[in-house]
Amino acid sequence: MAGPVSPLAVALPELPPLAGVRLSAAAAGIRYKGRTDVVMMEVAPGSTVAGVFTTNKCPGAPVDWCRAALKGGKARMVVVNAGNANVFTGKAGRDACAATAAAAAKLADCPAKQVFVASTGVIGEVLPHEKLVAALPGLQEGLREDGWEDAARGIMTTDTFPKAATRVAEIGGAEVRITGIAKGSGMIAPDMATMLCFVFTDAKIPADVLQSLLSKNVETTFNATTVDSDTSTSDTVLLIATGQAKHPRLPPAGETAARTRFLADFARKLNEVLLDLALQVVRDGEGAQKLVKIDVTGAVNARSAKRVAMAVANSPLVKTAIAGEDANWGRIVMAVGKAGEPADRDLISIGVGGTWMAKDGGVVPGYDEAPVVAHMKGREVEIAIDLGLGRGKSTVWTCDLTHGYIDINGSYRS
Amino acid sequence: MAGPVSPLAVALPELPPLAGVRLSAAAAGIRYKGRTDVVMMEVAPGSTVAGVFTTNKCPGAPVDWCRAALKGGKARMVVVNAGNANVFTGKAGRDACAATAAAAAKLADCPAKQVFVASTGVIGEVLPHEKLVAALPGLQEGLREDGWEDAARGIMTTDTFPKAATRVAEIGGAEVRITGIAKGSGMIAPDMATMLCFVFTDAKIPADVLQSLLSKNVETTFNATTVDSDTSTSDTVLLIATGQAKHPRLPPAGETAARTRFLADFARKLNEVLLDLALQVVRDGEGAQKLVKIDVTGAVNARSAKRVAMAVANSPLVKTAIAGEDANWGRIVMAVGKAGEPADRDLISIGVGGTWMAKDGGVVPGYDEAPVVAHMKGREVEIAIDLGLGRGKSTVWTCDLTHGYIDINGSYRS
Repeated sequence: MAGPVSPLAVALPELPPLAGVRLSAAAAGIRYKGRTDVVMMEVAPGSTVAGVFTTNKCPGAPVDWCRAALKGGKARMVVVNAGNANVFTGKAGRDACAATAAAAAKLADCPAKQVFVASTGVIGEVLPHEKLVAALPGLQEGLREDGWEDAARGIMTTDTFPKAATRVAEIGGAEVRITGIAKGSGMIAPDMATMLCFVFTDAKIPADVLQSLLSKNVETTFNATTVDSDTSTSDTVLLIATGQAKHPRLPPAGETAARTRFLADFARKLNEVLLDLALQVVRDGEGAQKLVKIDVTGAVNARSAKRVAMAVANSPLVKTAIAGEDANWGRIVMAVGKAGEPADRDLISIGVGGTWMAKDGGVVPGYDEAPVVAHMKGREVEIAIDLGLGRGKSTVWTCDLTHGYIDINGSYRS
Repeated sequence: MAGPVSPLAVALPELPPLAGVRLSAAAAGIRYKGRTDVVMMEVAPGSTVAGVFTTNKCPGAPVDWCRAALKGGKARMVVVNAGNANVFTGKAGRDACAATAAAAAKLADCPAKQVFVASTGVIGEVLPHEKLVAALPGLQEGLREDGWEDAARGIMTTDTFPKAATRVAEIGGAEVRITGIAKGSGMIAPDMATMLCFVFTDAKIPADVLQSLLSKNVETTFNATTVDSDTSTSDTVLLIATGQAKHPRLPPAGETAARTRFLADFARKLNEVLLDLALQVVRDGEGAQKLVKIDVTGAVNARSAKRVAMAVANSPLVKTAIAGEDANWGRIVMAVGKAGEPADRDLISIGVGGTWMAKDGGVVPGYDEAPVVAHMKGREVEIAIDLGLGRGKSTVWTCDLTHGYIDINGSYRS
C-alpha cells in the first residue's frame, strides 16, 4: 500500500474551519491494518444537500441509499468507509446501509434519511457493518472543526496522496467558503477505481438550487475527466450547504435570472473546487506520469466536441504514445475518427503544446518537431484538436497509460 | 521487428491453389529492409468483389479508393503495401492510389476501377508510390498459384506470424474453396493497429450477393473482436469470387429463400474462414498472452448483448485482471454496468470456464474458486455473462492487456 507517491501529486492546501461542519476518522479494521478507514462528517441541523452518482447500471448499495435519501434534500451526517465498496452484495448490502444509517441517526438525533453513506474498496464482499457501527460513537466523540486532513486521509484506498480544495466565494457582498475532499483512482490490491467527493459550504442555498449548481458543474469537471474509461459502481459527489454564513437571502424562486446573477461567483468558485479535486484524482490516476489536457474546438456542438475529446482521452494508443513522449498525431487522428462524431478528415488540425503539427488533412509544411518534443517531456501535456466544422468546444483531462497501470491492475488480488 | 512470436500463434494451414487466383510478393523498400513489403493478387477476368471497410471517420486514401471501385462490382487485381498506411496524406495520398491503380490496370489490361489497393503502416507520411509502381512488373512476372504464404508474409507489419485460413464448401452438390489471408494487430515501431483481410473463392456469385454474405458474416467475426478499442483508419476486408468452379447456377435473384438455402453451406464456411482469420488477428494482439471469449446471454436483444460484451472486452480493468490470471468478477460486473444497456444488477450471473461465480446480485453461496483459478492459468479464457432479461445473445473475442502492449506502443517511434 505504501508505494511511491504520484509524481503529479499536489500538496494539501490549508483548510480552515467551515461553519457547521465537523469531521473525524477512525480505524475500524474493515480491511486495512494500521490506518484510519472510517470517516464521519457531521453538518449543522437544517443543512441542504445535493448529489450526483455513477451512471453505472450496477451501482453499489450505498449509491442506492444516497439516491433515496437525497429526495428529502436535508443532511445531518455522512459516514464513509474505505476497503469494502459494498457493491454486488445483494440484501446484505442493503441491510448494511440501513443499519449504519440507523445507528448514526440515533447518535445525531435525526431521521435516518438525513444520513448519507458511501463505501469504496473491494467489490462483492459483504461489508462487516457491525465494525462500522461499533466505530460510530468514537467517531462522534472525535468530531472536530479542523478534521479535514484526517477525513481526506481516512477515505483513501490506494490513492497516493490526500485530496482537498477550498475557495472563498462572494454572495450578495458576503463571503462564504466552499471546501471539498475527494478520493479516487487508487485501487485496492487491486480493485476497481472508485471516486468519492464531499463538498461543503456555509452558504444558505435550498436543496433544489444546490442540485442544479452541482449537476451543471460536474459536467465540466469530474465528468470531463477519465483515467481508464472504466465507470465505477460507487462514484458519488455530495454537496452540502450548512447555511451558517451571514449573507443576504437568495432572490425568490421565480426570478431565475436574478438568482443566477446572485450566485454567479459561488457557481464559479464551486466549479474551481470541483475541477481542482477532479484533476487531483487524475493526477493520482493509476500509473500516471503525465497529466493530459485535451481541447477540442470547431465541433458541430459542445456535446460532439466532448465525445471526440473523450475518444482521444480514452484511446490506449494515444495514452501509450504520451507515456512514450511521442507526439504521435496519427493516433490522435485515428481517435478523432473513431469517435463517430461529425468530422472531415481534410479540415482537422492537431496541435501539441501550442504547435500545430497537422492541418488540412496532412502534416504542416516545414513542421519542426523540436518544440513539440520538448513539450512532451514535461509533466503536463496539452493537445489541441480543431475540427473546422462549427463552434462547439470541450476540454477534458486524462493521464498517460504506463507500465504502472499494468503493475497495479494486472497482479492477483491476494 | 524480429521479436518473439505470440504464444497464441497458430501454424499456417496448407493452402492449395484456388482456381483463378495468382499471388506474388516483392521487396520495394518502402520502409522495411530485407523483407517483402508489396503484394500483388491477380484474379481471373469477370471476378466479382465485395468489401467492408473501417467505420473510422478519417479513413486512409486506399479505403476511399476501394469504396469507389467497389461500385463496379468487378475485380482483376489487388495491390497491397506494408510499412506506410497512406493515411492523412491529403491530395498526395489520393494521387498515390490513382497512380498505383493506373499502372497495375495497364499491366492487367483492365479498367483502373478493377484494381483494389490497400496500405498498412505508419500514418501521415506520403507513400512513395513510385517505388510501388516500379515493383509492379516484377510482381506480375512472379505471380503463382501457390503464392499464398508469400502474400500472407508480405502484408505483415509487426504481426508475429502470417495468417491464413481455408475451407471447402458445397454449392449445389459441387465443391468450392474459400481461402483468405489477413494481417493485423502488429504495430509499426510503433504505429496504429490496422487490419487487412483478403478472401477468395472460386465460386460464381454475383457481387451483390457476395456483398450481403460478407457484410452479414463480418458482424459475427471481425466485428466481434477487439484488441484495444482503437478503430483503425485502414481496416479493409475484400471478398473476391473468381467464378472458376463448376457448380450449378444460383436460383434467380427474386427467389431469396431458395438462394439462401443454396448458399447455406458456403455462408457457413465463409463465416468459419472469417472467424478463423479474425481470431488469428486477436491471437497476435499486441502483447497478448491470453485469448478471451466473452459470451453474453439473456440480454433484451442481440445488439444489446454485443454492446455489453464489447464493454467487457474493452475494459482495461477486466483485461489487466485476466493478464494477472485473476477471475475478478467485480470488474466484470462494473463493465456490464457501464455499457449503458438494460441490465438489472440483481439478475446478473457471471461465470468463468464453466463455473458460475456470481448469481442473483451476489456471490454464489459456497463458491469454490479452485476450478476458476485453474482455468485462468490457461491460454484461452472463457467468460459467461447472463443478464437474465431476455433471449438476446452475442459472443466476442479479445486478448488480455499486458506489459507487452505498453512496450510496443509506449516507446518512441524512431
